Amino acid sequence: MVKIIIIGGMAAGCKAAARLARLSDNYSITVIERKPFVSFGSCGLPYYAAGEIDNLFDLSKTAYGTQRDEKYFLDVKGVEVLTNTEVSEIKTDNSEVKCFNIKSGKHFSLNYDKLIIAIGAKAIKPNFSFPESPRISSFHSPFDAKNFKEFAQKGKIGKAIIIGGGFIGCELTEAMTSLWGIETELIEKENSLLTKFLDPEFSRIVEKKIGDNDVKIHLSSEVEKIKLNEEQLPTVYLKNESQITADYVFYNLGVKPDSSLAKKCGIDTGKYDGIVVNEKMQTNFENIFASGDCVEVNNVVSGKTDYFSFGSLANRMGKIAADNIAGRDNQFKGVVGNVSLKIFNTIVCSVGLTEQIAFRCGIQTGSVIGTWADRPDYYPEYKNLFGKLVYEKSSLRLLGIQLIGDGEVTRYADIFSELLFNNKAVYDLQDVEHGYTPAHSSPISPLNFLGYMALNQEVDGMINTNPLDLELFNGTIIDVREDSERAESYTIDSSVHIPLTSLRKRTDEFPKDQKLLFVCEKGPRSYEAARIFKNKEFKNVSYLGGGLIMLKEFYKETNELVG
Amino acid sequence: MVKIIIIGGMAAGCKAAARLARLSDNYSITVIERKPFVSFGSCGLPYYAAGEIDNLFDLSKTAYGTQRDEKYFLDVKGVEVLTNTEVSEIKTDNSEVKCFNIKSGKHFSLNYDKLIIAIGAKAIKPNFSFPESPRISSFHSPFDAKNFKEFAQKGKIGKAIIIGGGFIGCELTEAMTSLWGIETELIEKENSLLTKFLDPEFSRIVEKKIGDNDVKIHLSSEVEKIKLNEEQLPTVYLKNESQITADYVFYNLGVKPDSSLAKKCGIDTGKYDGIVVNEKMQTNFENIFASGDCVEVNNVVSGKTDYFSFGSLANRMGKIAADNIAGRDNQFKGVVGNVSLKIFNTIVCSVGLTEQIAFRCGIQTGSVIGTWADRPDYYPEYKNLFGKLVYEKSSLRLLGIQLIGDGEVTRYADIFSELLFNNKAVYDLQDVEHGYTPAHSSPISPLNFLGYMALNQEVDGMINTNPLDLELFNGTIIDVREDSERAESYTIDSSVHIPLTSLRKRTDEFPKDQKLLFVCEKGPRSYEAARIFKNKEFKNVSYLGGGLIMLKEFYKETNELVG
Repeated sequence: MVKIIIIGGMAAGCKAAARLARLSDNYSITVIERKPFVSFGSCGLPYYAAGEIDNLFDLSKTAYGTQRDEKYFLDVKGVEVLTNTEVSEIKTDNSEVKCFNIKSGKHFSLNYDKLIIAIGAKAIKPNFSFPESPRISSFHSPFDAKNFKEFAQKGKIGKAIIIGGGFIGCELTEAMTSLWGIETELIEKENSLLTKFLDPEFSRIVEKKIGDNDVKIHLSSEVEKIKLNEEQLPTVYLKNESQITADYVFYNLGVKPDSSLAKKCGIDTGKYDGIVVNEKMQTNFENIFASGDCVEVNNVVSGKTDYFSFGSLANRMGKIAADNIAGRDNQFKGVVGNVSLKIFNTIVCSVGLTEQIAFRCGIQTGSVIGTWADRPDYYPEYKNLFGKLVYEKSSLRLLGIQLIGDGEVTRYADIFSELLFNNKAVYDLQDVEHGYTPAHSSPISPLNFLGYMALNQEVDGMINTNPLDLELFNGTIIDVREDSERAESYTIDSSVHIPLTSLRKRTDEFPKDQKLLFVCEKGPRSYEAARIFKNKEFKNVSYLGGGLIMLKEFYKETNELVG
Repeated sequence: MVKIIIIGGMAAGCKAAARLARLSDNYSITVIERKPFVSFGSCGLPYYAAGEIDNLFDLSKTAYGTQRDEKYFLDVKGVEVLTNTEVSEIKTDNSEVKCFNIKSGKHFSLNYDKLIIAIGAKAIKPNFSFPESPRISSFHSPFDAKNFKEFAQKGKIGKAIIIGGGFIGCELTEAMTSLWGIETELIEKENSLLTKFLDPEFSRIVEKKIGDNDVKIHLSSEVEKIKLNEEQLPTVYLKNESQITADYVFYNLGVKPDSSLAKKCGIDTGKYDGIVVNEKMQTNFENIFASGDCVEVNNVVSGKTDYFSFGSLANRMGKIAADNIAGRDNQFKGVVGNVSLKIFNTIVCSVGLTEQIAFRCGIQTGSVIGTWADRPDYYPEYKNLFGKLVYEKSSLRLLGIQLIGDGEVTRYADIFSELLFNNKAVYDLQDVEHGYTPAHSSPISPLNFLGYMALNQEVDGMINTNPLDLELFNGTIIDVREDSERAESYTIDSSVHIPLTSLRKRTDEFPKDQKLLFVCEKGPRSYEAARIFKNKEFKNVSYLGGGLIMLKEFYKETNELVG
């Protein structure tokens, strides 16, 4: 028998254990987990907190209602699971792990032939001071979620503060307000939300969405400290000297690899403090593998080391570690970064690099922004879809996409993920063949459109202007919509109004060297208008990316920045 | 000025015209259309017939409500459109088209430097005889849809017959029954519906769905003739000698390229009677291009000529023809065949080749079938998703996928389309990185699973049994579900019952050479069970693809075929 020890009984660890057990009866497999449970679907915690899932431990049940506990793993998989058990040391010289049972306090050692570290991630600790209190917690473990939910169910939370406007922070705002009706404030250090996944103009759409649901957002706001007031309620002190008191405070500053145990025994870690592995998920020790949230990965887009804490990747990594231990060649080829998030019925997707992150990686970018109906506009249930394509300026290689909408969104992110994985370029977007039926899509997909737009920009100089650059624009803005639309929608006060239908006859009204920016509701007409002028040898024409309908999404005060 | 004539003013023709006009003012562009309108969204006709779209001509409006008519094209695009105009002859020797106006009867000729044929498709004529009657029509042109809707609105249709169980036929059953409450019967010559897109076991799911909505389906039923009875109502005579009378009969036997005009002047057509073009959409005449439903294309999966009548492809082809006329290199690289269809809230997707069609192309196939929750099963709104992967047995190259479900379906078809386009193999499915969030997906996507299953089948002999092969199975069927599930769900009477949780201890009960088929609700447990036995050196084990939950979907009489 080959002795295999797996440290960590969540996605990566359990997947590796199950796969090894399936491949042969010649493995004696032990999974060591410090929590009192294994194979727990942590990604469901926000839904549990929101009340959509009643019982916390439904998150570790099989589809047919069986609890995935020690007995289940032994009976079904032939895998031994030790819960409530912590590994205190890995002794690589004699292939031994030192353990102790948290409940009994008993210490013991186990030998391994192969070891898999799948110990996961830990919540990043705040750099501000805060007292011990049941009213202040991160949102990382099931116990955090349970603690909050018990408070909420007792009606003891009238107001909550969420510190950190990342993925979890944004998801939680929905749980707080929609289900529990809690007055909620969201505090973010950066000047926009979701900065890892969205460029500022796309964050704005999310900020408006969250704001429209009565969540107060504090951007560029750093927390100095949290203190308890006389009633033992937490008060958050911001560095700008304002203070907010609430019944409950969550801090979600992200997670980082839990690699201290690995480091202690000489396993290499990297830039993100994650365990460094090769394509086989093997560490610098030949018989020690690692998988899941404790490792860092290769970002195939940036070509650099990166860190993602996704259950989907953890699962795939666990399988690959198991396959390689079993002598099968299987490689983890890196991560594109395909992130998807639901906030108040709006779907937010980001794949690859944002323009800001690409810039920080030293890549010169181009980008185009568009708005489309996600289905033909004659189809009654269509929804708007906002998209941004980011590409490398010199090679036209694809770098990333951001998509936001209430309808058909994820499919385009998923196709793009596959394109990115295969190192495709802007012109390849023209060939994308999506499934077209009016109930679910338009004949030309947003990916086809983004490809056309980027090529029009790069080949013909049809500049797609980022809405955030409107502020700086010092030429003439021509609004080519029909009269009726201007009355009903967002309008830039300073714009000249010439409907597209009469524009062709009126090009003479402008000098050929005048700087012209065309705007319309969604974009196609202003692009068409720019083409008309370009063909008449106007030198400096561009059109507004995403159209006025997108602009409407991110200026709360309609004329705050423009006009 | 370069004179460009485009025959056909629907998707491909209008796209080509608009693109050329945008690229330069040096084109004089004329679009000739025999119908009284242009740029009409024919794909919306079933929704118009169903009443979801009120006004027929909304299907040729822009998003901002302007009718895309002659004036619109002239004012906005600078393109001349001649409606109600038929081209009677193309004279290639002097680059001339002979036309006549259908309304005025006036004949005239136009010269071209470049010609684009985008004349579309025509409905295939039935090979049975039928009388002229306003109560009998195909469902191809807007007038067909309008005629039906007027009848239906007057309440004159109590019962309808649809001949042809393809794409349009299936879509129409929903319009008939859901909106209009019309008693509907569907007649199909083949022994299953949608034979171009689905293998028989997947057609069954659709047949049950349509049947559950009170549509009577006649499979393997050929129409001999239609006659009018004394009340002038159409009676359909089937070759099996039964007769059905209804208030309205639609025949939908598919479409074929409308290539007679092209053929007459010596333009090459192919196997499907479609115009043959190169990657630039150029015919055998250097200055004549063709695009859209009148051309045949290269199927990148089969490597053979194929024919698809999709608005999405027509659009893309029109652009490519225009780019090449404008001297820009742009190529149409062929079609994967990504078909998507909504029937009674169920989404049906098919990409690439079915197993039956691959077989007819002379390709030896392997396949696996699975059922999954489209989101984690703890998520309250999850739906089941049925999937079938088809691959080439020798090379493991991907050939096709079929997916049916009520929830998240299209995204996986779309990713697969991209994989097919890039000639990927089964093992590449492991690397697919989809956007994971419990609101919209599971951590392991169906594509990852199908890849794992196919590799398990090919590498380890973990045979996934097609549910239609159950009939022929002559070994022991072992049901590994829990007791409670057997009572509540579909059960094979002849099966032995051993829950997975006690299976490991009971392998001794069977001889090693016994033929064993494991079954469970969705598939994972029966696969696990087969692994347990395989590891104990059982020689002949397999598991039921798709599980009993899928079987339930296609046997109306639960024990009709099994037991």
